[in-house]
Amino acid sequence: MTASLFISFEGIDGSGKSTQARRLAETLRAAGHEAQLTREPGGSPGAEEIRQLLLTGDPGRWSAETELLLFTAARRDHLERTIRPTLARGHTVITDRFADSTRVYQGATRGDLRETVDRLHALMIGTEPELTFLIDMDPAKALARGLARGSGEDRFEEMGLGFQQTLRAGFLALAAAAPERFCVIDGDRAADAVAAEIAAITLPRVRGVA
Amino acid sequence: MTASLFISFEGIDGSGKSTQARRLAETLRAAGHEAQLTREPGGSPGAEEIRQLLLTGDPGRWSAETELLLFTAARRDHLERTIRPTLARGHTVITDRFADSTRVYQGATRGDLRETVDRLHALMIGTEPELTFLIDMDPAKALARGLARGSGEDRFEEMGLGFQQTLRAGFLALAAAAPERFCVIDGDRAADAVAAEIAAITLPRVRGVA
Repeated sequence: MTASLFISFEGIDGSGKSTQARRLAETLRAAGHEAQLTREPGGSPGAEEIRQLLLTGDPGRWSAETELLLFTAARRDHLERTIRPTLARGHTVITDRFADSTRVYQGATRGDLRETVDRLHALMIGTEPELTFLIDMDPAKALARGLARGSGEDRFEEMGLGFQQTLRAGFLALAAAAPERFCVIDGDRAADAVAAEIAAITLPRVRGVA
Repeated sequence: MTASLFISFEGIDGSGKSTQARRLAETLRAAGHEAQLTREPGGSPGAEEIRQLLLTGDPGRWSAETELLLFTAARRDHLERTIRPTLARGHTVITDRFADSTRVYQGATRGDLRETVDRLHALMIGTEPELTFLIDMDPAKALARGLARGSGEDRFEEMGLGFQQTLRAGFLALAAAAPERFCVIDGDRAADAVAAEIAAITLPRVRGVA
Protein backbone atom coordinates (compact mmCIF):
# COMPACT_ATOMS: atom_id res chain seq x y z
CA MET A 1 0.00 0.00 0.00
CA THR A 2 1.31 3.44 -0.85
CA ALA A 3 0.26 6.82 0.47
CA SER A 4 0.16 10.10 -1.39
CA LEU A 5 1.76 13.00 0.44
CA PHE A 6 1.62 16.76 0.20
CA ILE A 7 5.25 17.89 0.59
CA SER A 8 6.71 21.40 0.50
CA PHE A 9 10.28 22.64 0.26
CA GLU A 10 11.18 25.91 1.93
CA GLY A 11 14.36 27.87 2.51
CA ILE A 12 16.22 31.03 1.64
CA ASP A 13 17.47 31.85 -1.84
CA GLY A 14 20.49 29.70 -2.66
CA SER A 15 19.67 26.96 -0.16
CA GLY A 16 19.25 24.44 -2.94
CA LYS A 17 15.57 23.77 -2.18
CA SER A 18 14.48 23.82 -5.85
CA THR A 19 17.17 21.30 -6.75
CA GLN A 20 16.18 19.10 -3.83
CA ALA A 21 12.47 19.28 -4.68
CA ARG A 22 13.25 18.13 -8.21
CA ARG A 23 15.56 15.36 -6.98
CA LEU A 24 12.93 14.03 -4.56
CA ALA A 25 10.38 13.88 -7.38
CA GLU A 26 12.89 11.90 -9.48
CA THR A 27 13.68 9.57 -6.57
CA LEU A 28 10.00 8.86 -5.90
CA ARG A 29 9.32 8.16 -9.56
CA ALA A 30 12.35 5.87 -9.77
CA ALA A 31 10.87 3.97 -6.80
CA GLY A 32 7.58 3.55 -8.67
CA HIS A 33 5.54 6.30 -7.02
CA GLU A 34 3.61 8.98 -8.88
CA ALA A 35 4.96 12.39 -7.92
CA GLN A 36 4.13 15.80 -9.32
CA LEU A 37 6.61 18.65 -8.95
CA THR A 38 5.15 22.13 -8.73
CA ARG A 39 6.09 25.58 -7.40
CA GLU A 40 4.84 28.88 -6.01
CA PRO A 41 3.94 31.46 -6.93
CA GLY A 42 2.36 29.59 -9.83
CA GLY A 43 1.80 25.89 -10.27
CA SER A 44 -1.46 26.14 -12.21
CA PRO A 45 -2.34 28.13 -15.35
CA GLY A 46 -4.29 30.80 -13.44
CA ALA A 47 -1.67 31.08 -10.71
CA GLU A 48 1.04 31.48 -13.35
CA GLU A 49 -0.93 34.46 -14.72
CA ILE A 50 -0.92 35.99 -11.23
CA ARG A 51 2.80 35.15 -10.92
CA GLN A 52 3.41 37.36 -13.94
CA LEU A 53 1.81 40.30 -12.09
CA LEU A 54 3.97 39.63 -9.03
CA LEU A 55 7.32 38.98 -10.69
CA THR A 56 7.29 41.29 -13.70
CA GLY A 57 7.11 45.07 -13.74
CA ASP A 58 8.09 47.23 -10.79
CA PRO A 59 7.60 45.08 -7.66
CA GLY A 60 7.26 48.29 -5.63
CA ARG A 61 3.95 49.03 -7.33
CA TRP A 62 2.15 46.66 -4.92
CA SER A 63 1.85 47.33 -1.21
CA ALA A 64 2.62 44.42 1.11
CA GLU A 65 -1.12 43.93 1.66
CA THR A 66 -2.00 43.84 -2.05
CA GLU A 67 0.94 41.51 -2.71
CA LEU A 68 -0.31 39.25 0.10
CA LEU A 69 -3.77 39.08 -1.52
CA LEU A 70 -2.24 38.28 -4.92
CA PHE A 71 -0.03 35.53 -3.45
CA THR A 72 -3.10 34.11 -1.69
CA ALA A 73 -5.19 34.22 -4.89
CA ALA A 74 -2.41 32.34 -6.71
CA ARG A 75 -2.17 29.82 -3.84
CA ARG A 76 -5.92 29.21 -3.85
CA ASP A 77 -5.86 28.50 -7.58
CA HIS A 78 -2.78 26.26 -7.21
CA LEU A 79 -4.50 24.36 -4.41
CA GLU A 80 -7.77 23.89 -6.31
CA ARG A 81 -6.43 23.18 -9.78
CA THR A 82 -3.20 21.30 -9.12
CA ILE A 83 -2.59 20.20 -5.53
CA ARG A 84 -5.99 18.79 -4.53
CA PRO A 85 -6.73 17.01 -7.84
CA THR A 86 -3.26 15.45 -7.84
CA LEU A 87 -3.63 14.20 -4.27
CA ALA A 88 -7.15 12.94 -5.12
CA ARG A 89 -5.61 10.75 -7.83
CA GLY A 90 -3.39 9.22 -5.15
CA HIS A 91 -0.24 10.98 -6.34
CA THR A 92 2.29 12.82 -4.22
CA VAL A 93 2.65 16.60 -4.64
CA ILE A 94 6.05 18.24 -4.12
CA THR A 95 5.88 22.03 -4.15
CA ASP A 96 8.81 24.41 -4.24
CA ARG A 97 7.49 26.94 -1.65
CA PHE A 98 4.04 27.16 -0.08
CA ALA A 99 2.47 29.28 2.68
CA ASP A 100 5.56 29.26 4.93
CA SER A 101 7.34 31.46 2.38
CA THR A 102 4.57 34.04 2.67
CA ARG A 103 4.72 33.88 6.47
CA VAL A 104 8.46 34.44 6.47
CA TYR A 105 8.85 36.97 3.64
CA GLN A 106 5.89 39.12 4.70
CA GLY A 107 6.82 38.75 8.36
CA ALA A 108 10.39 39.81 7.70
CA THR A 109 9.44 42.83 5.64
CA ARG A 110 6.36 43.87 7.62
CA GLY A 111 6.24 42.42 11.12
CA ASP A 112 2.84 44.00 11.76
CA LEU A 113 1.36 41.93 8.92
CA ARG A 114 2.16 38.56 10.45
CA GLU A 115 -1.21 38.15 12.18
CA THR A 116 -3.02 39.20 8.99
CA VAL A 117 -1.04 36.59 7.04
CA ASP A 118 -2.21 33.88 9.44
CA ARG A 119 -5.83 35.03 9.46
CA LEU A 120 -5.96 35.26 5.66
CA HIS A 121 -4.43 31.78 5.38
CA ALA A 122 -7.01 30.36 7.81
CA LEU A 123 -9.86 32.04 5.91
CA MET A 124 -8.91 31.30 2.28
CA ILE A 125 -6.39 28.40 2.24
CA GLY A 126 -6.70 26.39 5.47
CA THR A 127 -4.37 23.61 4.29
CA GLU A 128 -0.80 22.80 5.29
CA PRO A 129 1.59 20.30 3.73
CA GLU A 130 1.94 17.01 5.58
CA LEU A 131 5.71 17.27 5.39
CA THR A 132 7.86 20.38 4.94
CA PHE A 133 11.57 20.17 4.26
CA LEU A 134 13.34 23.32 5.38
CA ILE A 135 16.70 23.36 3.61
CA ASP A 136 18.65 25.33 6.14
CA MET A 137 21.86 27.15 5.36
CA ASP A 138 23.77 30.16 6.58
CA PRO A 139 23.19 32.72 3.81
CA ALA A 140 26.84 33.81 4.00
CA LYS A 141 27.85 30.23 3.15
CA ALA A 142 25.30 30.04 0.34
CA LEU A 143 26.77 33.23 -1.06
CA ALA A 144 30.36 32.00 -0.64
CA ARG A 145 29.49 28.73 -2.41
CA GLY A 146 27.96 30.66 -5.25
CA LEU A 147 24.59 28.97 -4.67
CA ALA A 148 22.84 32.29 -4.42
CA ARG A 149 23.84 33.43 -7.86
CA GLY A 150 22.07 32.70 -11.11
CA SER A 151 19.21 31.00 -9.32
CA GLY A 152 16.59 33.08 -11.09
CA GLU A 153 15.36 34.35 -7.74
CA ASP A 154 18.60 35.93 -6.61
CA ARG A 155 17.85 38.76 -4.26
CA PHE A 156 21.02 38.76 -2.18
CA GLU A 157 22.49 41.91 -3.63
CA GLU A 158 19.13 43.64 -3.75
CA MET A 159 17.96 42.72 -0.25
CA GLY A 160 21.25 42.31 1.58
CA LEU A 161 22.76 39.51 3.64
CA GLY A 162 21.16 40.78 6.84
CA PHE A 163 17.72 40.37 5.30
CA GLN A 164 18.55 36.79 4.31
CA GLN A 165 19.66 36.11 7.90
CA THR A 166 16.29 37.42 9.07
CA LEU A 167 14.49 35.11 6.64
CA ARG A 168 16.53 32.14 7.82
CA ALA A 169 15.65 32.90 11.44
CA GLY A 170 11.99 33.18 10.42
CA PHE A 171 11.98 29.75 8.77
CA LEU A 172 13.73 28.17 11.77
CA ALA A 173 11.14 29.70 14.11
CA LEU A 174 8.29 28.24 12.04
CA ALA A 175 9.99 24.83 12.10
CA ALA A 176 10.41 24.99 15.88
CA ALA A 177 6.72 25.85 16.26
CA ALA A 178 5.49 22.95 14.08
CA PRO A 179 7.95 20.07 14.60
CA GLU A 180 5.34 17.46 13.58
CA ARG A 181 5.38 18.87 10.04
CA PHE A 182 8.89 20.28 9.53
CA CYS A 183 12.14 18.45 8.85
CA VAL A 184 15.09 20.83 9.08
CA ILE A 185 17.79 19.63 6.70
CA ASP A 186 21.39 20.84 6.82
CA GLY A 187 21.82 22.27 3.32
CA ASP A 188 25.54 22.97 3.73
CA ARG A 189 26.57 19.62 2.31
CA ALA A 190 26.96 18.04 -1.11
CA ALA A 191 23.61 17.89 -2.94
CA ASP A 192 23.84 14.07 -3.07
CA ALA A 193 24.09 13.81 0.70
CA VAL A 194 21.16 16.18 1.19
CA ALA A 195 19.07 14.29 -1.38
CA ALA A 196 19.86 10.96 0.30
CA GLU A 197 18.69 12.20 3.71
CA ILE A 198 15.44 13.58 2.22
CA ALA A 199 14.79 10.33 0.34
CA ALA A 200 15.40 8.29 3.50
CA ILE A 201 12.77 10.34 5.34
CA THR A 202 10.21 10.37 2.54
CA LEU A 203 10.30 6.85 1.05
CA PRO A 204 8.98 5.05 4.17
CA ARG A 205 6.11 7.54 4.36
CA VAL A 206 4.96 7.13 0.76
CA ARG A 207 5.23 3.38 1.26
CA GLY A 208 2.79 3.81 4.12
CA VAL A 209 5.15 2.21 6.64
CA ALA A 210 6.15 5.32 8.60
CA MET B 1 -16.27 75.16 4.54
CA THR B 2 -16.50 72.12 2.27
CA ALA B 3 -16.21 68.43 3.13
CA SER B 4 -14.75 65.66 0.98
CA LEU B 5 -16.91 62.57 0.73
CA PHE B 6 -16.34 58.96 -0.28
CA ILE B 7 -19.36 58.10 -2.45
CA SER B 8 -20.18 54.85 -4.26
CA PHE B 9 -22.76 54.00 -6.89
CA GLU B 10 -24.21 50.51 -6.97
CA GLY B 11 -26.89 48.73 -8.95
CA ILE B 12 -27.58 46.04 -11.49
CA ASP B 13 -26.40 46.20 -15.09
CA GLY B 14 -28.46 48.72 -17.01
CA SER B 15 -29.55 50.71 -13.97
CA GLY B 16 -27.71 53.78 -15.20
CA LYS B 17 -25.34 53.94 -12.24
CA SER B 18 -22.24 54.66 -14.36
CA THR B 19 -24.03 57.55 -16.08
CA GLN B 20 -25.21 58.91 -12.74
CA ALA B 21 -21.75 58.61 -11.15
CA ARG B 22 -20.31 60.65 -14.03
CA ARG B 23 -23.08 63.21 -13.84
CA LEU B 24 -22.61 63.71 -10.11
CA ALA B 25 -18.88 64.32 -10.64
CA GLU B 26 -19.75 66.94 -13.28
CA THR B 27 -22.33 68.56 -11.00
CA LEU B 28 -19.90 68.78 -8.09
CA ARG B 29 -17.17 70.27 -10.28
CA ALA B 30 -19.63 72.79 -11.72
CA ALA B 31 -20.42 73.79 -8.13
CA GLY B 32 -16.73 74.37 -7.44
CA HIS B 33 -15.90 71.14 -5.62
CA GLU B 34 -13.02 68.84 -6.49
CA ALA B 35 -14.41 65.41 -7.41
CA GLN B 36 -12.61 62.37 -8.77
CA LEU B 37 -14.57 59.74 -10.68
CA THR B 38 -13.27 56.19 -10.46
CA ARG B 39 -14.55 52.63 -10.86
CA GLU B 40 -14.14 49.02 -9.84
CA PRO B 41 -12.65 46.64 -10.60
CA GLY B 42 -9.77 48.98 -11.38
CA GLY B 43 -9.37 52.64 -10.52
CA SER B 44 -5.59 52.58 -10.05
CA PRO B 45 -2.83 51.34 -12.38
CA GLY B 46 -2.23 48.13 -10.38
CA ALA B 47 -5.94 47.43 -9.96
CA GLU B 48 -6.44 47.90 -13.70
CA GLU B 49 -3.80 45.18 -14.26
CA ILE B 50 -5.81 42.88 -11.99
CA ARG B 51 -9.00 43.91 -13.80
CA GLN B 52 -7.48 42.54 -16.98
CA LEU B 53 -7.10 39.13 -15.31
CA LEU B 54 -10.73 39.23 -14.16
CA LEU B 55 -12.41 40.52 -17.29
CA THR B 56 -10.37 39.02 -20.12
CA GLY B 57 -9.90 35.36 -20.95
CA ASP B 58 -12.27 32.64 -19.83
CA PRO B 59 -13.98 33.93 -16.64
CA GLY B 60 -14.67 30.33 -15.64
CA ARG B 61 -10.97 29.73 -15.12
CA TRP B 62 -11.21 31.31 -11.63
CA SER B 63 -13.15 29.74 -8.80
CA ALA B 64 -15.43 32.05 -6.81
CA GLU B 65 -12.85 32.10 -3.99
CA THR B 66 -9.91 32.99 -6.26
CA GLU B 67 -12.01 35.64 -7.98
CA LEU B 68 -12.92 37.06 -4.56
CA LEU B 69 -9.23 37.32 -3.64
CA LEU B 70 -8.43 39.04 -6.95
CA PHE B 71 -11.29 41.53 -6.52
CA THR B 72 -10.05 42.23 -2.99
CA ALA B 73 -6.45 42.71 -4.17
CA ALA B 74 -7.69 45.19 -6.78
CA ARG B 75 -9.84 46.97 -4.17
CA ARG B 76 -6.92 47.25 -1.74
CA ASP B 77 -4.77 48.84 -4.45
CA HIS B 78 -7.60 51.16 -5.50
CA LEU B 79 -8.10 52.20 -1.87
CA GLU B 80 -4.39 52.82 -1.21
CA ARG B 81 -3.40 54.44 -4.48
CA THR B 82 -6.50 56.38 -5.50
CA ILE B 83 -9.26 56.65 -2.89
CA ARG B 84 -7.29 57.48 0.27
CA PRO B 85 -4.84 59.93 -1.37
CA THR B 86 -7.72 61.75 -3.09
CA LEU B 87 -9.69 62.06 0.15
CA ALA B 88 -6.49 63.19 1.92
CA ARG B 89 -6.24 66.08 -0.53
CA GLY B 90 -9.74 67.10 0.51
CA HIS B 91 -11.35 65.96 -2.73
CA THR B 92 -14.51 63.89 -3.09
CA VAL B 93 -14.24 60.36 -4.52
CA ILE B 94 -17.10 58.94 -6.59
CA THR B 95 -16.63 55.27 -7.41
CA ASP B 96 -18.71 53.22 -9.83
CA ARG B 97 -19.03 50.05 -7.70
CA PHE B 98 -17.23 49.16 -4.45
CA ALA B 99 -17.50 46.34 -1.93
CA ASP B 100 -21.31 46.07 -2.09
CA SER B 101 -20.99 44.70 -5.62
CA THR B 102 -18.76 41.91 -4.34
CA ARG B 103 -21.20 41.16 -1.52
CA VAL B 104 -24.11 40.92 -3.93
CA TYR B 105 -22.50 39.19 -6.92
CA GLN B 106 -20.64 36.60 -4.81
CA GLY B 107 -23.65 36.16 -2.54
CA ALA B 108 -25.97 35.59 -5.49
CA THR B 109 -23.69 33.06 -7.16
CA ARG B 110 -22.40 31.32 -4.02
CA GLY B 111 -24.54 31.91 -0.96
CA ASP B 112 -22.12 29.95 1.23
CA LEU B 113 -19.40 32.49 0.46
CA ARG B 114 -21.22 35.46 1.93
CA GLU B 115 -19.64 35.17 5.38
CA THR B 116 -16.20 34.76 3.83
CA VAL B 117 -16.78 37.92 1.76
CA ASP B 118 -17.55 39.87 4.94
CA ARG B 119 -14.60 38.46 6.88
CA LEU B 120 -12.19 39.14 4.03
CA HIS B 121 -13.50 42.69 3.72
CA ALA B 122 -13.06 43.27 7.47
CA LEU B 123 -9.51 41.86 7.35
CA MET B 124 -8.13 43.53 4.21
CA ILE B 125 -10.33 46.54 3.34
CA GLY B 126 -12.20 47.70 6.44
CA THR B 127 -13.54 50.85 4.81
CA GLU B 128 -17.04 51.72 3.59
CA PRO B 129 -18.18 54.71 1.56
CA GLU B 130 -19.83 57.47 3.56
CA LEU B 131 -22.68 57.59 1.05
CA THR B 132 -23.87 54.87 -1.34
CA PHE B 133 -26.40 55.54 -4.07
CA LEU B 134 -28.21 52.37 -5.05
CA ILE B 135 -29.79 53.05 -8.43
CA ASP B 136 -32.72 50.69 -8.18
CA MET B 137 -34.62 49.39 -11.16
CA ASP B 138 -36.62 46.34 -12.12
CA PRO B 139 -34.27 44.47 -14.49
CA ALA B 140 -37.17 43.70 -16.83
CA LYS B 141 -37.74 47.46 -17.23
CA ALA B 142 -34.03 48.09 -17.75
CA LEU B 143 -34.08 45.48 -20.49
CA ALA B 144 -37.27 46.89 -22.06
CA ARG B 145 -35.77 50.39 -22.09
CA GLY B 146 -32.65 49.10 -23.77
CA LEU B 147 -30.49 50.29 -20.88
CA ALA B 148 -29.00 46.87 -20.43
CA ARG B 149 -27.59 46.70 -23.91
CA GLY B 150 -24.29 48.06 -25.11
CA SER B 151 -23.29 49.02 -21.58
CA GLY B 152 -19.96 47.23 -21.81
CA GLU B 153 -20.96 45.05 -18.90
CA ASP B 154 -24.02 43.49 -20.45
CA ARG B 155 -24.66 40.16 -18.86
CA PHE B 156 -28.42 39.92 -19.20
CA GLU B 157 -28.44 37.34 -21.93
CA GLU B 158 -25.60 35.41 -20.39
CA MET B 159 -26.87 35.36 -16.80
CA GLY B 160 -30.63 35.59 -17.32
CA LEU B 161 -33.29 37.92 -16.00
CA GLY B 162 -33.85 35.78 -12.90
CA PHE B 163 -30.24 36.25 -11.87
CA GLN B 164 -30.58 40.03 -12.26
CA GLN B 165 -33.69 39.91 -10.07
CA THR B 166 -31.64 38.09 -7.44
CA LEU B 167 -28.92 40.74 -7.65
CA ARG B 168 -31.50 43.52 -7.27
CA ALA B 169 -32.94 41.85 -4.17
CA GLY B 170 -29.42 41.50 -2.79
CA PHE B 171 -28.69 45.21 -3.22
CA LEU B 172 -32.02 46.17 -1.62
CA ALA B 173 -31.28 43.91 1.36
CA LEU B 174 -27.88 45.58 1.86
CA ALA B 175 -29.54 49.01 1.70
CA ALA B 176 -32.14 47.99 4.27
CA ALA B 177 -29.40 46.76 6.61
CA ALA B 178 -27.34 49.98 6.39
CA PRO B 179 -29.83 52.85 5.96
CA GLU B 180 -27.35 55.38 7.42
CA ARG B 181 -25.12 54.90 4.38
CA PHE B 182 -27.47 53.94 1.53
CA CYS B 183 -29.77 56.15 -0.52
CA VAL B 184 -32.04 54.04 -2.71
CA ILE B 185 -32.83 56.01 -5.86
CA ASP B 186 -35.64 55.11 -8.26
CA GLY B 187 -33.74 54.61 -11.51
CA ASP B 188 -36.86 54.13 -13.63
CA ARG B 189 -37.11 57.81 -14.52
CA ALA B 190 -35.45 60.18 -16.97
CA ALA B 191 -31.72 60.50 -16.29
CA ASP B 192 -32.11 64.24 -15.61
CA ALA B 193 -34.63 63.61 -12.84
CA VAL B 194 -32.42 60.94 -11.26
CA ALA B 195 -29.38 63.22 -11.47
CA ALA B 196 -31.28 66.10 -9.88
CA GLU B 197 -32.32 63.99 -6.89
CA ILE B 198 -28.75 62.73 -6.37
CA ALA B 199 -27.37 66.28 -6.62
CA ALA B 200 -29.93 67.55 -4.11
CA ILE B 201 -28.79 64.92 -1.61
CA THR B 202 -25.06 65.35 -2.18
CA LEU B 203 -24.51 69.10 -2.52
CA PRO B 204 -25.51 69.98 1.07
CA ARG B 205 -23.16 67.30 2.37
CA VAL B 206 -20.10 68.44 0.42
CA ARG B 207 -20.91 72.00 1.54
CA GLY B 208 -20.69 70.69 5.09
CA VAL B 209 -24.19 71.85 5.91
CA ALA B 210 -25.94 68.48 6.03
